[in-house]
Amino acid sequence: MERIGLGLIGFGTVGTGVVKVLEENRDVIKERLGVELSIRRIACRDRTRKRAVEVNPDVLTTSAEEVLKDPGVSIVVELVGGTERAREFVIGAIEEGKHVVTANKALLSEYGREVFGLATEKGVDVGFEASVGGGIPVIKALKEGLCANRIEGITGIINGTANYILTRMTEEGGRFEDVLKDAQKKGYAEADPTYDVEGIDTAHKLAILASMAFGTWIELDDIYTEGIGRITELDVKLAGELGYRIKLLAIAKCERDGVEARVHPTMIPTGHPLSTVRGVYNAVHIYGNAVGSVMLYGRGAGMMPTASAVVSDIMDIARNIAKGVTARVPPLGYIQQSMKELKVRPVDYIEVPYYLRFSAIDRPGVLSRISGVFGAHNISIASVIQKGRDIGGAVPLVITTHHAREKELRTALQEIEKLDVVTAEPLYIRIEECGGEDG
Amino acid sequence: MERIGLGLIGFGTVGTGVVKVLEENRDVIKERLGVELSIRRIACRDRTRKRAVEVNPDVLTTSAEEVLKDPGVSIVVELVGGTERAREFVIGAIEEGKHVVTANKALLSEYGREVFGLATEKGVDVGFEASVGGGIPVIKALKEGLCANRIEGITGIINGTANYILTRMTEEGGRFEDVLKDAQKKGYAEADPTYDVEGIDTAHKLAILASMAFGTWIELDDIYTEGIGRITELDVKLAGELGYRIKLLAIAKCERDGVEARVHPTMIPTGHPLSTVRGVYNAVHIYGNAVGSVMLYGRGAGMMPTASAVVSDIMDIARNIAKGVTARVPPLGYIQQSMKELKVRPVDYIEVPYYLRFSAIDRPGVLSRISGVFGAHNISIASVIQKGRDIGGAVPLVITTHHAREKELRTALQEIEKLDVVTAEPLYIRIEECGGEDG
Repeated sequence: MERIGLGLIGFGTVGTGVVKVLEENRDVIKERLGVELSIRRIACRDRTRKRAVEVNPDVLTTSAEEVLKDPGVSIVVELVGGTERAREFVIGAIEEGKHVVTANKALLSEYGREVFGLATEKGVDVGFEASVGGGIPVIKALKEGLCANRIEGITGIINGTANYILTRMTEEGGRFEDVLKDAQKKGYAEADPTYDVEGIDTAHKLAILASMAFGTWIELDDIYTEGIGRITELDVKLAGELGYRIKLLAIAKCERDGVEARVHPTMIPTGHPLSTVRGVYNAVHIYGNAVGSVMLYGRGAGMMPTASAVVSDIMDIARNIAKGVTARVPPLGYIQQSMKELKVRPVDYIEVPYYLRFSAIDRPGVLSRISGVFGAHNISIASVIQKGRDIGGAVPLVITTHHAREKELRTALQEIEKLDVVTAEPLYIRIEECGGEDG
Repeated sequence: MERIGLGLIGFGTVGTGVVKVLEENRDVIKERLGVELSIRRIACRDRTRKRAVEVNPDVLTTSAEEVLKDPGVSIVVELVGGTERAREFVIGAIEEGKHVVTANKALLSEYGREVFGLATEKGVDVGFEASVGGGIPVIKALKEGLCANRIEGITGIINGTANYILTRMTEEGGRFEDVLKDAQKKGYAEADPTYDVEGIDTAHKLAILASMAFGTWIELDDIYTEGIGRITELDVKLAGELGYRIKLLAIAKCERDGVEARVHPTMIPTGHPLSTVRGVYNAVHIYGNAVGSVMLYGRGAGMMPTASAVVSDIMDIARNIAKGVTARVPPLGYIQQSMKELKVRPVDYIEVPYYLRFSAIDRPGVLSRISGVFGAHNISIASVIQKGRDIGGAVPLVITTHHAREKELRTALQEIEKLDVVTAEPLYIRIEECGGEDG
């Protein structure tokens, strides 16, 4: 039986998971593939560290170069994370004519154009299923399973930490800061949670998904990105009363007048399937012009789910090697000469309904002054709730609007902020109606 | 640019959808594929019928043979439905060395072994994504996206009609018969709804999914199949009170002592993602030993979702043709010599918790007599609810049990039915706890 040699660079959590899956599922992998996968080399910082899996010490090396140069290695699995060294290894592997599998969304969202360009040139395959949504086969769905569709929109919950925090706040209450601290204690949030709660990790993944959906390069800098740090208990509670849940969403749309790509806390109707995605789970909702709504759901992170995606990618490439073909499916699902240069529309120009929370003095005439500003900007109000009473003091005043252009809304809010009856900077959350779920 | 010739047999709803997708998405298909797809021949009963799409009348023929024999046709798309003629066309196409795409679950669940065996022998590909879950790319997920996993279980809502009826009964109340009638009026149920409400269609699809999951041939006759016709308004209401929803589930499990494959109305916890699948939507929940829980959700039927899957399959095969390879992935995801002969465990031997509804005389001592029988059979009771009072008359008595072996349960129920305090045949619904969603 043919054997295909693998080389791993990085032997942390995901690397350990990959070795574990290759070991524990050796029989079923062989039964599916008809070819054996064998780990030839693993580059790691510390060869002597005790790990959760046993490997032949001879395959361990501290030199990534040894992996790249090993003629027995056909597929290089990059699992070091970060961007600069990872780029060096991935480019190095491709230059050597080796196929690459990576879970590195930061790398691909920043250097994807270079990586995929070179891979196409050199005729090697790059698998990156694990870069978005952990074990959920969403990359394959976009590239192949739904390839007959014009993809019109993608809406995703693709950061488990942020979703865990918002779920806890929704179900148990609590301040963002306290829930975050508890999540860190429980291992659901990193010591430095910036990437997760600020939406940066979500933006990395959205850049990849949106590029694949629309056949264009979405630059990270063009994705409007806003985190969940300003969401309060009251917002979560009021969202529920209004029939919504707050989720950190990655949103991409392709419409006649341009592409939208944005990451921000969003209110979605409680009837929408994404609203039921709890805790660390991820889900990606895809709208295709033929298939309609499709959603893929599962664990978006963790050793074994991520390893599931990495090994599935390895098997995909192994099938190509066994059949003597490469580049059977283009890296982003579109052949290179069909890739377009589409412009992302600045967030100023989106039109959505808004949830607005003001801190306003509790006295007659206040609503009329605030709503007067909206009226002057042609923004139409859908509902008003004043929470509690504190005559002469400041109380939360919540307004939802019908569809409004963000630019107009911001201008109106700047004017409202200057009113003497408003005591703090207003907060606004975009509402996504996510139409089309007629059941 | 290379062109790949397609031949359709059958030009009903799905055939029309396939032509529509190929036409409307011509540009994006070419951008993804780098190869053009062209319809060479369509065999249909009536060449002159007015259809929702325009086709060159020269491609229409009333002879399937012409499609099979056309040297310009590389891929035959079988869309006639039924089993006997469909089998003849599919086998005929494979004999001619043509690749096949079909949406026909009845055909594959009955003749799959023959069809896939011959395809492997002849070195042609057979695509059948559209046979389960309409446009949801679940076949590809099992075959490729999750191929690194040992699949331990599949739980699916894969019949839109049954799910529509149960959803209406849950959300609006109403008797099964009335909701069915209304569904027929609205076009959500066929004039003869047997296949859908009796679980037969679900069993066809489960046979395909379970065969792929475990690498064995699941015979239709081995799948225990029970429909939703005996579910009452009261059952639906009580399910809600007990924290469950009733769904027609396809369940397959692979455990050390054998395989389970069964279709029946099932109570699942309201927290489970499958419980939120409403109306005509389908969803398949897959449990893999590495990835954990994954769920795929979308429209399980309809012209365009089904066409999405058919055309994605065509594109998959076109990529193989363009690269000069076939059988890159085995039809069921396992290479033929690895396919096992696993036995399906008879339903008598499953062990699950049960919901039981009795019609019992409302008088003291009744519960003690019923529970005595359960005790004698070592079946442990979890809860008891008596609905309403009618002293001396018959009232519904609902009991839930802890895990019990079905055989024991049936024996106990037969004894209980003979008690003079029980006035009608008891109804029982299996409960699936669907563990593992710790979110």
